[in-house]
Amino acid sequence: MAVKRVYTFGNGKAEGRVDMKNLLGGKGANLAEMNLIGVPVPPGFTITTDACIEYNKLGKDAIVDLLKAEVEAAVKNVEALTNTSFGDKNNPLLVSVRSGARASMPGMMDTVLNLGLNDDSVAGIAAKSNNDRFAWDSYRRFVQMYGDVVLGMKPESKEEIDPFERIMEEVKERKGVDLDTDLDVEDLKELVTLFKLAVKEQTGHDFPESAWEQLWGAVTAVFDSWNTDRAKIYRRMEGIPDEWGTAVNVQAMVYGNMGDNSATGVAFTRDAGTGENIFNGEYLINAQGEDVVAGIRTPQQITKEGSLRWAELQGVTEEDRVDMYPSLEEAMPKVYKELDAVQKKLEHHYKDMQDLEFTVQDGKLWLLQTRNGKRTGAAMVKIAMDMYREKIIDDKMVLMRIEANKLDELLHPVFDLDAITSAQELARGLPASPGAASGQIVFFADEAKKYPVTILVRTETSPEDLEGMVVAKGILTARGGMTSHAAVVARGMGKCCVSGAGALKIDYKERVMRIDGKVYKEGDWISLNGSTGKVYGGSVKTTQPDLDGDFGHIMDFATKHTRMNVRTNADTPKDARVARDFGAQGIGLCRTEHMFFEGGRIKSVREMILSSDENGRRAALDKLLPYQREDFEGIFEAMDGYSVTIRLLDPPLHEFVPHTEAAQQDMATEMGISLAEVKTKISDLEEINPMLGHRGCRLGNTYPEITEMQTRAIIEAAINLKKKGVIAKPEIMVPLIGTVEELKMQNDIIRKTADLVFAEKGDKVDYLVGTMIEIPRAALLADKVAEVAEFFSFGTNDLTQMAFGYSRDDANKFLPVYLEKGILKTDPFQVLDQEGVGQLVEMGTQRGRFTKPDLKVGICGEHGGEPKSVEFCDSVGMNYVSCSPFRVPIARVAAAQANIKKDLK
Amino acid sequence: MAVKRVYTFGNGKAEGRVDMKNLLGGKGANLAEMNLIGVPVPPGFTITTDACIEYNKLGKDAIVDLLKAEVEAAVKNVEALTNTSFGDKNNPLLVSVRSGARASMPGMMDTVLNLGLNDDSVAGIAAKSNNDRFAWDSYRRFVQMYGDVVLGMKPESKEEIDPFERIMEEVKERKGVDLDTDLDVEDLKELVTLFKLAVKEQTGHDFPESAWEQLWGAVTAVFDSWNTDRAKIYRRMEGIPDEWGTAVNVQAMVYGNMGDNSATGVAFTRDAGTGENIFNGEYLINAQGEDVVAGIRTPQQITKEGSLRWAELQGVTEEDRVDMYPSLEEAMPKVYKELDAVQKKLEHHYKDMQDLEFTVQDGKLWLLQTRNGKRTGAAMVKIAMDMYREKIIDDKMVLMRIEANKLDELLHPVFDLDAITSAQELARGLPASPGAASGQIVFFADEAKKYPVTILVRTETSPEDLEGMVVAKGILTARGGMTSHAAVVARGMGKCCVSGAGALKIDYKERVMRIDGKVYKEGDWISLNGSTGKVYGGSVKTTQPDLDGDFGHIMDFATKHTRMNVRTNADTPKDARVARDFGAQGIGLCRTEHMFFEGGRIKSVREMILSSDENGRRAALDKLLPYQREDFEGIFEAMDGYSVTIRLLDPPLHEFVPHTEAAQQDMATEMGISLAEVKTKISDLEEINPMLGHRGCRLGNTYPEITEMQTRAIIEAAINLKKKGVIAKPEIMVPLIGTVEELKMQNDIIRKTADLVFAEKGDKVDYLVGTMIEIPRAALLADKVAEVAEFFSFGTNDLTQMAFGYSRDDANKFLPVYLEKGILKTDPFQVLDQEGVGQLVEMGTQRGRFTKPDLKVGICGEHGGEPKSVEFCDSVGMNYVSCSPFRVPIARVAAAQANIKKDLK
Repeated sequence: MAVKRVYTFGNGKAEGRVDMKNLLGGKGANLAEMNLIGVPVPPGFTITTDACIEYNKLGKDAIVDLLKAEVEAAVKNVEALTNTSFGDKNNPLLVSVRSGARASMPGMMDTVLNLGLNDDSVAGIAAKSNNDRFAWDSYRRFVQMYGDVVLGMKPESKEEIDPFERIMEEVKERKGVDLDTDLDVEDLKELVTLFKLAVKEQTGHDFPESAWEQLWGAVTAVFDSWNTDRAKIYRRMEGIPDEWGTAVNVQAMVYGNMGDNSATGVAFTRDAGTGENIFNGEYLINAQGEDVVAGIRTPQQITKEGSLRWAELQGVTEEDRVDMYPSLEEAMPKVYKELDAVQKKLEHHYKDMQDLEFTVQDGKLWLLQTRNGKRTGAAMVKIAMDMYREKIIDDKMVLMRIEANKLDELLHPVFDLDAITSAQELARGLPASPGAASGQIVFFADEAKKYPVTILVRTETSPEDLEGMVVAKGILTARGGMTSHAAVVARGMGKCCVSGAGALKIDYKERVMRIDGKVYKEGDWISLNGSTGKVYGGSVKTTQPDLDGDFGHIMDFATKHTRMNVRTNADTPKDARVARDFGAQGIGLCRTEHMFFEGGRIKSVREMILSSDENGRRAALDKLLPYQREDFEGIFEAMDGYSVTIRLLDPPLHEFVPHTEAAQQDMATEMGISLAEVKTKISDLEEINPMLGHRGCRLGNTYPEITEMQTRAIIEAAINLKKKGVIAKPEIMVPLIGTVEELKMQNDIIRKTADLVFAEKGDKVDYLVGTMIEIPRAALLADKVAEVAEFFSFGTNDLTQMAFGYSRDDANKFLPVYLEKGILKTDPFQVLDQEGVGQLVEMGTQRGRFTKPDLKVGICGEHGGEPKSVEFCDSVGMNYVSCSPFRVPIARVAAAQANIKKDLK
Repeated sequence: MAVKRVYTFGNGKAEGRVDMKNLLGGKGANLAEMNLIGVPVPPGFTITTDACIEYNKLGKDAIVDLLKAEVEAAVKNVEALTNTSFGDKNNPLLVSVRSGARASMPGMMDTVLNLGLNDDSVAGIAAKSNNDRFAWDSYRRFVQMYGDVVLGMKPESKEEIDPFERIMEEVKERKGVDLDTDLDVEDLKELVTLFKLAVKEQTGHDFPESAWEQLWGAVTAVFDSWNTDRAKIYRRMEGIPDEWGTAVNVQAMVYGNMGDNSATGVAFTRDAGTGENIFNGEYLINAQGEDVVAGIRTPQQITKEGSLRWAELQGVTEEDRVDMYPSLEEAMPKVYKELDAVQKKLEHHYKDMQDLEFTVQDGKLWLLQTRNGKRTGAAMVKIAMDMYREKIIDDKMVLMRIEANKLDELLHPVFDLDAITSAQELARGLPASPGAASGQIVFFADEAKKYPVTILVRTETSPEDLEGMVVAKGILTARGGMTSHAAVVARGMGKCCVSGAGALKIDYKERVMRIDGKVYKEGDWISLNGSTGKVYGGSVKTTQPDLDGDFGHIMDFATKHTRMNVRTNADTPKDARVARDFGAQGIGLCRTEHMFFEGGRIKSVREMILSSDENGRRAALDKLLPYQREDFEGIFEAMDGYSVTIRLLDPPLHEFVPHTEAAQQDMATEMGISLAEVKTKISDLEEINPMLGHRGCRLGNTYPEITEMQTRAIIEAAINLKKKGVIAKPEIMVPLIGTVEELKMQNDIIRKTADLVFAEKGDKVDYLVGTMIEIPRAALLADKVAEVAEFFSFGTNDLTQMAFGYSRDDANKFLPVYLEKGILKTDPFQVLDQEGVGQLVEMGTQRGRFTKPDLKVGICGEHGGEPKSVEFCDSVGMNYVSCSPFRVPIARVAAAQANIKKDLK
């Protein structure tokens, strides 16, 4: 026996261990481990994942040959431990057969229960349990499950129902009953006969009576389920290799439905909602596992304390509670005590909150499963910190326990859970900026103050809407993606936004929006969940998160264990301060274009754009200079002592021109030219693919005077603040370079202008000149770019757009389909595509550092706040990541985790 | 003397050679070589390019120290050969000083002539030449040239004229004369005095009297000219390294203006226009070199035969000719005989047609320069083939002599040279599709037949204009780049097109276009030069090129020496046949979308697009199937035996929908839906960045039925033709993949459909499934893509757009500025950017072949017909290039050259 393919467990012994997940799958390894630490688990055995791989190569006959001796020995072991005999008609061993891969895989085979039953042994079970109905119901369920899962008895088309369900319906109709439980023993016998006939008819084979034939059928069916389309798509999406294979778990059946001394339930070692250290859960007496979740009977609480609280909430009297819904603690005190001990043992052993499944058969407790329990963001933080204080885990482990993205829940208002359950969902869009908001609909930005609390609803927003967006509680758009104007601005503000809700048809004239034919007027209340993209009717109650001490402790741990810095993307002193409060160590991206819209500046900007020559542009830029300088002073002050990376003007100029004829007329009057001239100029600016058009450094290189003005504003601001004792550290960033010559030209302009300002002011400040790496060509030529650049900042939004050839604003036409069909595993705009775009990031970093070993490298795309992407940034050796203020805590934890993981490797 | 920095030449001896261009520059090496082969050249010496590099590091004093001994020796050598003395007042040696780099560099220093003259030696020259005026005019010219070139006597601002010219004007005005030649010796003396005063005033220094000081000044001025802004920009554009440096040529002066026994001229060893083997050129008696080209005097012909022909054309009587304009052959028969011998010797030595400059001083012939002569495309072909027949060069050398791009001149009609000279240029656009065309203006595609010969003038064309474009003689658009619809379609048809002529303002309502305020009506004649982008008023005579035997011979040589195949991009049987006649070995890109517009098909296409579900789409596609099949049958037949790469549907669907309300109403009526519904659907299709939107395989993956229909049409066509004995070799190409999963999914659909057709037809054909590599990510992941693809075709148009982030349709806002400022050396859409995009092409090829060593790789972007890019494709090991039919000959020669060059290396 060179290769061991079967691992037994039972009665406190096991051949496997928790660290053998690769070979035994997650479930198998845990079943073994529970045995080893003395938790009562029904005996059984696990067939290895390697056997599955062999099966895929060799086929059924060969694998049965290879497994036969070991499986027979393992079955004998279970027979001995359970004092039963597999296939025996009087005292049969019944087993469950379940798949169990390394990673949880919902695409795979369902469980087969009660395997080993046949026309003979059903009588034995009836006699043994002294319960005819139990025996025949078990048999009926087995034939149905086995037929479905192993024999492929599926509905013939999508429109038809399951063949067994159809037979059930016919029988129930004939008997005139509604519920399965109303069927008597004779009905169940008839069902078994009819089920078997259906199997014969549809598959051409008799239903297998032999327990061994049943077992091998089920085992190979589990193996086969590894290769179903569903499983393949799931693996493709989750990045699970096809080579892993699945293990098979065969385990003696235990029953919670053998009478009033039996029960079944699920429990959590701590509160999954709040994180409180309170054992809790639900159970049912005389029931099967699925009954607890099916909702036919009202589940009862495990602990008395929980039961009392439940009764109060439900308005159940103490008399009724004790009578009808007693807790396990009260109903089965001995079992409860044992369960409580087991849950303590499991949590202590696994050092995390556990989610348990248990069954009580005839007064005896059996654990069927344990796993780390899912939990809310708040519970995640509280449990981790409680366990730290309980000295169960250390600070690094606290950090590793944090699912960084979930911290988001703690930072924004959220809908009250009860309120949202009953709210009416109107439409869905993209979760453009997290948080929850309710307000009255307004359709025009300048009417955002018309009601006390408003939601601005637009087909899409433009920079002209900026002030209205500041006022509104939330923003909803019918068009535009995750980087649409609305989305980017809202995220910057930390304001709730749902974008691209395609079902909305907005009629600005009538001041209504229509969704599926229904009409919503200005002033109607709606609610947005910016974290899910859902739009609700009416006002839904929100709750404000409480950033208690635990959150702060975790942030301190993150600082302690992080290599990379975390900066923020912020365009205003306010955002900068918010981010600094969240722990941002500088600004990685300050977009200057948003400043161009505020107050009266937009007029000067338009004057610059509409000027026909350099002199005209310079005159307009001179008016803008004091505003820009003031902006930078505010931001430098807020980030006193930290670096501030300022990106020079980036968007195409047509984003700044007036779109309505009225505004165009105003412009014409103001500039003393004709409306026609204004219109011609605007139409000259139009572009077919603005994303790839006249923007970024292409502006600064065609109109150097813009770069001059911005540089002057930056340097003057820094020198002015120096006198006040504020330390400004400007890093001037040239956007969208694709050739080193573009950067050289901008660098020359910046340095010349700075020298001029230094001479004028008689004072100097330190500053850096660097560039975004956001064009594939720039990454490819990073060694040359680094000859000029003092820092790189990867603009992974645009880099993703260009590397994939996806316009983020248009990708909603195919991206959802691609995600659904598994062509893409994740949205590359949310999670950095390490395989493709990542190559450019890594190449860019390495080539840049080849030229300049100490080159400062960061990321300022949206990916800078996404945990997996942050880990990638750490792995390529970046100096920092930068993200929107509200994602700073997430990035800090992710950065710490990335660093800790390297140590663990 | 470890390092030799000065190389002398003269009197049949030389220290340099023609193969020392790197060290001596092109001019210096040729001057040496002419000496070595016995051609009379004024003696002199060359200071090396290495000395220039040393000068840049060490400065003037150091370089003079290093050069002094060698230069003094070299001057002595010239003195000895000319029997003069440098700086001597009675018998001075006068020299010219010229720059001369490895490559011709117009950005560098002009010539300084007559160096060595001063207030003393001018008298010596006067005495020696017995010509006061000659001496003082030479001195005046020297002071002016030296002041300008060496002492930096430039105008103070752009508005002002040259300081010396200003003085000249003043003196002439005072004297009341118009021409320089009207000034007498005293005037010239005054000018020298005034010039020197101006120098003193502007520079603060006296004009140098010492010949040696003059020489060192001029030599270092040449060195300095290497680093002027103009030179730097030129180098950046031409890709010349800064490290090369320039050589300096110092040469004894000879004069063609010393009397009637002196002359100067230029000559060609063969006719540069026609290629005829006729010695020809022009000269003037008693003149300086610049007088021949200045146009003040009418130049005379070198040969008698040429002179007779000239007189006939000019209407000059034989009497006048002999009297006033005799040929050199007649006027100076001895000199002519010598020159004729020299030209024969030079051509034979250099084995190419030579462009000569000569001077006759007092009856003695001197050659000042020889270089390979520029020539027309026709002359290029004829000269190369004549020399082959004359056994001067072999077939490989014939190919290397072809400037492949110039073949274009031979393939399209061209404007008659005389006619075009007098034509009125109205505007300029992009040279979108070569050739020349005259016709009457029409503004609507469906009116293209309104006049016998029409030019279709549109703001931009859309696929709806296709039939009109077929009819029109040429196409002119006001908007759109080199890949605009008009440009791409016209190139495919080999039809003349000028696109993006921004000055045009078209008024469709009034049926006029306005250019700079002038109005051109429908029916007015205009002419287009699609090779230059120029638009002319009126009808300009065109001549049809004659593809004589020489062209065919060259094509045969190309076939013999080529490694790569050349295919064509063709969408119709007609184009396919044209290309095959030009030698195309298959189709590298057959775009299927153009077929969607012809005849009534567009209605079915629109029906498909506007359908709300798969069934509706399938019904419309069923209608299209027979058309598509027929298209493919025609193309396969035209390419019988050759591979045909068919690209599945690529453009975004909105390109197919009707744009006018009338057409939309038609569509609505036809489909039985409301106009509003049609409009909604069309507006749903709109995209912000269509280039990066829902197109390419994203269509086939969201609507698999499109891929199914196209595959079916391809396979059915191939099987149908098989019965007729036609061999179809379809290569089905999936466009725009960025992930291997996209290709997998399309591959599955294609193979399943093909198998279905095979089963239906009971017959099979071979076919391949491959993909465009046009998205950067696909190139990066080419190893994975090659697991599925059977061939790659690099779509370098889109790859360039995405690697640079340039929308070709919008780049006209900044690309011209970038080219002008030297940020880009060439337009990356015309010449493949080897440095950046080339990395992706090379990486993609290598990675693809890593997975599949025999992977077929080609290119089907516009670069496939551009010689430098073709060479690059050869260097990365591509199997073929593909280009538009009319560029096939160019690509064939370029491919052969690339292959020959590898042997030469």
